[in-house]
Amino acid sequence: MALFILIFEIIGTIAFAVSGAITGLKKNMDIFGVCILGLTTAVGGGIIRDLILGITPPAAFRNPTNALLAIAVSIIIFIPAVRHGIFANNRIYELLMLISDSAGLGIFTVCGARVAIDAGFSSNIFLTVFVAVLTGVGGGVIRDLFAGDRPYIFVKHIYACAALAGAILCILLWNAVGSGISMVSGFALIIIIRLLAARFNWNLPHAKEFSQQ
Amino acid sequence: MALFILIFEIIGTIAFAVSGAITGLKKNMDIFGVCILGLTTAVGGGIIRDLILGITPPAAFRNPTNALLAIAVSIIIFIPAVRHGIFANNRIYELLMLISDSAGLGIFTVCGARVAIDAGFSSNIFLTVFVAVLTGVGGGVIRDLFAGDRPYIFVKHIYACAALAGAILCILLWNAVGSGISMVSGFALIIIIRLLAARFNWNLPHAKEFSQQ
Amino acid sequence: MALFILIFEIIGTIAFAVSGAITGLKKNMDIFGVCILGLTTAVGGGIIRDLILGITPPAAFRNPTNALLAIAVSIIIFIPAVRHGIFANNRIYELLMLISDSAGLGIFTVCGARVAIDAGFSSNIFLTVFVAVLTGVGGGVIRDLFAGDRPYIFVKHIYACAALAGAILCILLWNAVGSGISMVSGFALIIIIRLLAARFNWNLPHAKEFSQQ
Repeated sequence: MALFILIFEIIGTIAFAVSGAITGLKKNMDIFGVCILGLTTAVGGGIIRDLILGITPPAAFRNPTNALLAIAVSIIIFIPAVRHGIFANNRIYELLMLISDSAGLGIFTVCGARVAIDAGFSSNIFLTVFVAVLTGVGGGVIRDLFAGDRPYIFVKHIYACAALAGAILCILLWNAVGSGISMVSGFALIIIIRLLAARFNWNLPHAKEFSQQ
Repeated sequence: MALFILIFEIIGTIAFAVSGAITGLKKNMDIFGVCILGLTTAVGGGIIRDLILGITPPAAFRNPTNALLAIAVSIIIFIPAVRHGIFANNRIYELLMLISDSAGLGIFTVCGARVAIDAGFSSNIFLTVFVAVLTGVGGGVIRDLFAGDRPYIFVKHIYACAALAGAILCILLWNAVGSGISMVSGFALIIIIRLLAARFNWNLPHAKEFSQQ
Repeated sequence: MALFILIFEIIGTIAFAVSGAITGLKKNMDIFGVCILGLTTAVGGGIIRDLILGITPPAAFRNPTNALLAIAVSIIIFIPAVRHGIFANNRIYELLMLISDSAGLGIFTVCGARVAIDAGFSSNIFLTVFVAVLTGVGGGVIRDLFAGDRPYIFVKHIYACAALAGAILCILLWNAVGSGISMVSGFALIIIIRLLAARFNWNLPHAKEFSQQ
């Protein structure tokens, strides 16, 4: 189980580092800026989660593995961008952004639920769900604020809705089927909702009359 | 007394949720974005306050009442906006924003003072005032950063000045007249300063020569 | 030694307050906005550091000296700006910004390392370096987010690189030569790297092909 969670977290870290790094490339940052954006996207959500739960110093500070991994991924992303400019192709960029951001969102949401439950808050479902969603969306919000964009969560296809649905599913299943299956289920639901939303252009209602007048 | 504080906090939560929700409408966000902005505005200041004071998890996570209330208010605000576009009328928008933001600022500032005093920091007046002002302005700063605006506190009529004056009044009165009267007094002073500033266009000096050259 | 650190911190606080205040002037803020930006730039990095290390309430809240100093500096900066508009001269502004921001970055980075070591984390070099860099860059990131700019750290000459190099030097020397010399060495390295980078227009590689297509 520990191995499963380790691999899960590694994949999530790589995914969010990719989404941060290609956002930095899109904004024409230099290699250090790209690394910092990759790093903050990958570890930001977990740091917020640990501060909220009173776990200090946050795990990202105590154990450098994920931070160093995020920096390495950012450098690896940087090289083909410089050599071949492949992310300048908007379709490749959009697709990679959708996949990496969705994977990071899904994994960090359910990992956030696990940390909150392990810290002894399983009896407070609201807190667990709230912390899980915050862990999932936190890295992306920091990424977008640093990049000068309006956070993804306010503009994209059913973004926080997906995290919320996945967190609730994960926590409801927890006692019945165990942590492993419930984490994978929550993760899968988040990925499915986001991909379907992107594919079929699902959007929640806007108050369009507001802006048109 | 507990009932008074409860009602006070409910009004403050509704007021800040309204200010966040109509900011989201102004920015043409969808219903989930509007809810998130209403929620973060309403609970953001209190979460910052609790992290500063070492109260983890913050109250907003332990007790869902205020968070659910903020979401409900955001949804209620959303419906007439979509149906009738009433906030597209700039005068109605500005007026509602002024009232809701001022009420939230006033209530959260004095509630922040109360939490700092209850946590045992009443002997450090600077800390109590600093925490009170931060609680009051925190939600609005988060709202404006998420919406991509320069925070209100840097541009609006004597904004933080009002919170500072109210916090100092509240804390100075605390031992003399009790928590209830001092909270209401601080709140009233903040509201009065902000409404007068808006009515008579009070502004603090700018360094105009700076930008004109 | 305590006196040395006190003087060091005072210089750093003044430097960062200057950089925040002139940023506020550049953005045509009123005197209160200028003070808040000077204040948040000067105390922001230390507050983030203390929250990460679990030191609550953060030092900036417990002891008002630095906060009041930052506000005083901001007011002093404001007066000649209004009277003579001297910061409207772009060369003076750029030069003062480079010097004050570099001095603040250098001092807060090594002070951050000291606080992390004093808090008992000296055995975890990664944590100490990470906290040191975060303390150094934190105030500037908050300043730039509030001012609506992309944070300096993502655009300027070898900014975080300098903080990283200085933090590592400071921590490597710590046990060998004592805290005083290692802090001054780390500080000096940061200043030298930033001034050289500005003088000779050093830049890290960008992914230019990305933005040109």
